[in-house]
Amino acid sequence: MTMKRKKISIIGAGFTGATAAFIAAQKELGDIVLVDIPQLENPTKGKALDMLESSPVLGFDSNIIGTSNYEDTADSDLVIITAGLARKPGMSRDDLVTTNAQIMKSVTKEIVKYSPNCYIIVLTNPVDAMTYTVYKESGFPKNRVIGQSGVLDTARFRTFVAQELNLSVKDITGFVLGGHGDDMVPLVRYSYAGGIPLEKLIPADRLEAIVQRTRTGGGEIVNLLGNGSAYYAPAASLVEMAEAILKDQRRVLPAIAYLEGEYGYEGIYLGVPTILGGNGIEQIIELELTPEEKAALDKSVQSVLNVMKVLE
Amino acid sequence: MTMKRKKISIIGAGFTGATAAFIAAQKELGDIVLVDIPQLENPTKGKALDMLESSPVLGFDSNIIGTSNYEDTADSDLVIITAGLARKPGMSRDDLVTTNAQIMKSVTKEIVKYSPNCYIIVLTNPVDAMTYTVYKESGFPKNRVIGQSGVLDTARFRTFVAQELNLSVKDITGFVLGGHGDDMVPLVRYSYAGGIPLEKLIPADRLEAIVQRTRTGGGEIVNLLGNGSAYYAPAASLVEMAEAILKDQRRVLPAIAYLEGEYGYEGIYLGVPTILGGNGIEQIIELELTPEEKAALDKSVQSVLNVMKVLE
Amino acid sequence: MTMKRKKISIIGAGFTGATAAFIAAQKELGDIVLVDIPQLENPTKGKALDMLESSPVLGFDSNIIGTSNYEDTADSDLVIITAGLARKPGMSRDDLVTTNAQIMKSVTKEIVKYSPNCYIIVLTNPVDAMTYTVYKESGFPKNRVIGQSGVLDTARFRTFVAQELNLSVKDITGFVLGGHGDDMVPLVRYSYAGGIPLEKLIPADRLEAIVQRTRTGGGEIVNLLGNGSAYYAPAASLVEMAEAILKDQRRVLPAIAYLEGEYGYEGIYLGVPTILGGNGIEQIIELELTPEEKAALDKSVQSVLNVMKVLE
Amino acid sequence: MTMKRKKISIIGAGFTGATAAFIAAQKELGDIVLVDIPQLENPTKGKALDMLESSPVLGFDSNIIGTSNYEDTADSDLVIITAGLARKPGMSRDDLVTTNAQIMKSVTKEIVKYSPNCYIIVLTNPVDAMTYTVYKESGFPKNRVIGQSGVLDTARFRTFVAQELNLSVKDITGFVLGGHGDDMVPLVRYSYAGGIPLEKLIPADRLEAIVQRTRTGGGEIVNLLGNGSAYYAPAASLVEMAEAILKDQRRVLPAIAYLEGEYGYEGIYLGVPTILGGNGIEQIIELELTPEEKAALDKSVQSVLNVMKVLE
Repeated sequence: MTMKRKKISIIGAGFTGATAAFIAAQKELGDIVLVDIPQLENPTKGKALDMLESSPVLGFDSNIIGTSNYEDTADSDLVIITAGLARKPGMSRDDLVTTNAQIMKSVTKEIVKYSPNCYIIVLTNPVDAMTYTVYKESGFPKNRVIGQSGVLDTARFRTFVAQELNLSVKDITGFVLGGHGDDMVPLVRYSYAGGIPLEKLIPADRLEAIVQRTRTGGGEIVNLLGNGSAYYAPAASLVEMAEAILKDQRRVLPAIAYLEGEYGYEGIYLGVPTILGGNGIEQIIELELTPEEKAALDKSVQSVLNVMKVLE
Repeated sequence: MTMKRKKISIIGAGFTGATAAFIAAQKELGDIVLVDIPQLENPTKGKALDMLESSPVLGFDSNIIGTSNYEDTADSDLVIITAGLARKPGMSRDDLVTTNAQIMKSVTKEIVKYSPNCYIIVLTNPVDAMTYTVYKESGFPKNRVIGQSGVLDTARFRTFVAQELNLSVKDITGFVLGGHGDDMVPLVRYSYAGGIPLEKLIPADRLEAIVQRTRTGGGEIVNLLGNGSAYYAPAASLVEMAEAILKDQRRVLPAIAYLEGEYGYEGIYLGVPTILGGNGIEQIIELELTPEEKAALDKSVQSVLNVMKVLE
Repeated sequence: MTMKRKKISIIGAGFTGATAAFIAAQKELGDIVLVDIPQLENPTKGKALDMLESSPVLGFDSNIIGTSNYEDTADSDLVIITAGLARKPGMSRDDLVTTNAQIMKSVTKEIVKYSPNCYIIVLTNPVDAMTYTVYKESGFPKNRVIGQSGVLDTARFRTFVAQELNLSVKDITGFVLGGHGDDMVPLVRYSYAGGIPLEKLIPADRLEAIVQRTRTGGGEIVNLLGNGSAYYAPAASLVEMAEAILKDQRRVLPAIAYLEGEYGYEGIYLGVPTILGGNGIEQIIELELTPEEKAALDKSVQSVLNVMKVLE
Repeated sequence: MTMKRKKISIIGAGFTGATAAFIAAQKELGDIVLVDIPQLENPTKGKALDMLESSPVLGFDSNIIGTSNYEDTADSDLVIITAGLARKPGMSRDDLVTTNAQIMKSVTKEIVKYSPNCYIIVLTNPVDAMTYTVYKESGFPKNRVIGQSGVLDTARFRTFVAQELNLSVKDITGFVLGGHGDDMVPLVRYSYAGGIPLEKLIPADRLEAIVQRTRTGGGEIVNLLGNGSAYYAPAASLVEMAEAILKDQRRVLPAIAYLEGEYGYEGIYLGVPTILGGNGIEQIIELELTPEEKAALDKSVQSVLNVMKVLE
């Protein structure tokens, strides 16, 4: 019974994909295959080699390779998809959706071909619709296709709260439902510092400002960078989800999951609290919502449906 | 007696500086100030914020800020310099030296002004001469101004050996003297796998090929990336040196140190084995060299001196 | 400006003290001095040396020494007191209090003599009264003398909840006020799994059983061991508090703090939510209590006062 | 394809077994089953529960249970044997061997019954003979039955050298062949500080004193403790070997391996340099020995054979 390392493939070797590889390798979660298109094969190999050359210093035993050949991903335990375009000036939102959906389909075909038993985590935007696309294309059961948004959204929220209260990030928690960005439905009443509801610690207007800043947290980074978008926190979020699955941790994490009646929705991927473990999404946790929260979630769902319409 | 976190400033928020910040923050070595020029202030702030937003997920309590104002670096315990140009097409080597020396001088002025007691680690190329420039400009004692090259060179060497023998990087060590790149003087007889001299494990021609690949290891990454140079392994190397000092570890690490008679050289910065601890370079370890090694080191010194002539 | 490691002295080298030393050393929080009485000097040295001999394998650079001479603790940044008797058959509770108070006094004299600026964390039972005794004897400001009970109580609570729900311990939080053991005032309404109040996830009777098991958590281990009491979780709890101070983390942690009016009490040490950072207890967080909670806390206070009466 | 945690059973829940469990759990190497005899079932459960209660504080997701029922070890990936008697006053050495061999046999029967595919690491003394006994009883292939002694011996050696030179343990390596204790054959010429042979850094008499201290390193701890023997460093050594296998690291580590002609010996278990990876002992590394080293190794072998004679 040979002990084998887990294998993680990351599709898209841009900043987020590469940073996710670097974090996962440092944690020795498994060997890493970084995949990008043939035109970018050399840079992908270069990033992988550079990372690998840090391993003696950082003390990790994870192999990292770069490739444009999906054969190298064979028998992956888990695949992370970060591939896809960012919206460019002049590009309509619908064009973006259509293009990225095409990318998802072709990427998924390859993943499924070489790793029919893997788990897939999707980051590509618009992430709810892209996760749905991957789900449909893969033919995988729903527990094995998962989207990321809530871990990142709550990470930003927690950072802003920690700054506001000048407290350790370790003791701040946050909670969101629904879509990414403007559609985010923060459940502030389920967010705490050291277990104390934030509403008791932060004035309402400041808390609202933090929520609003979280909603536009991706845009804040885009504006600052001037060119490109966030990748450190997104990559860390992806790896936390991957770790929960690979190490069967049964973490309670927000994830984009396929709903079949939960929260009153049917047949869509949406951000909800889940239990992530060795079977991927092992459970969706249903919470009672206030009418306001339900209305906000409905709005969020509507906007996911609008994107999905473009895909049909 | 308030317990205060250490403070680390990183001058130059390009890929290497930013990655060093990310690694150091994850290790909770201290709070990080990422500094770049005013024109890049916003991207620098963006990178710092993005990293900080990963902290709740990765579980570290290190503040990270981006700035172009050296006042923010005040009272740093340790400063890492990664600022400087890479050689561009059409730029002569001498022009590069002159330009980067100017940058070192202006950067050092600011560092010294705000952190008169700090330790400085220099990465900017040509690193031996640039470390010398910083040393002279700072007026600091020699133990507090240190250059990085050998940790990176041996990291690459160890990676290639680990691949060759299919062994854990944790059990491979390497040893270099002298300058970076072509001038590197590898001491293969002091390099081991699990304590066993590599010469007993790897045929001479393969070992020579690995040495040669190490010499050109930076160029290999440059060629693969197509645009830009290595940053993961260089950043990890900087942080290992910083950690040795900040945590007073008395590590035995190769470093670019100021020689006053050691190895027969006087008044130059050169890569030698050192003891790095709470006083920076606490000792230079002198080894007897074979005539061939001494000749190679002389050549390396000559090439450092040639660069330094440009600076006069 | 030499970088120096932090120094942590641990008074009492029994299982808890030794395990705390082992955990703190692995985290490289500083160098460790393990202190016990002269009759136990050799075993104390033996434990310290054995631990130190694990350092090359576990990869930590923390010195660990065993001693019975308080001079060796000189200039400690933080001191942990685990010394003291456990109640023996036939010993009255008052005798235990009186004896341990004597030990606290003599130990504190030595600590203060050699480390006048240190922080002190007390574990010895009955911990509220013993922390008070150390406070009085030391003459230190209240922020620098702290007792441990709530971190351990909540750790046990979180473990039982994680088992009940089959979830990662990383996502479970707990909250207690007041004294250790029977006097514990659990605030279940401030306890969560993934941010979701436990009351929504666990039936009331099961939750009450978990609370009750937590109250008697120390006794459960004592009964199982047959001889001796818990030390792994108590040691981990001590180190978490020490780390919060030494690394200035501003954690929100329950701690035994000196009250001057908070929660309506004056001049006693009691378990309350605090902010632990580079100044020790930087803040006591006051919460509104329900009448039931306030009554339970009053009872807890009464029992602390009863112990303190013995001391007068 | 459900992701499952690895499972590690530890037979013998004394200090070494328990400490190994604690270290392995913190590293999240897998779930831990701590096994001892029925008379010690409750203390074993108590230790396991106490450790588990540290998990929310230390942040690890590894289940830990205590039991006296081997059914609970079913399908372990790796089993560590620490069970066995220490020599008591008045007990002959042969009696110890015979008794521990009986324990090995009965323990191995149970291990094999419930985990026919596991790897086994043996610590029980006299370890060479006990590993042989387990090997024979198990019927396992030789790569899956391994003894521990050299990792511990070199850990002690490295500690003493680090103290002698006042250097980080991270940069010191050591190398031993042959049996544990007096029979140890240290290869000082393969031992280094920062890659520099120790013979160049430490005077011969000091180095010889360090070697001698290493030989009697176990006894030094026994003498200091007065009652009982070392467990921190032995436990750390066991976990390092287990990690190398479970994470398929292909570490170069000294281990007690079954020789079939290597080093000129046939049919015995002896301490030699090995490659430890996902197949257990994947390779024995043969080195040329000087006549003195070979003579010392012969002596070591003779003493292993003497013990084995007792077993026949």
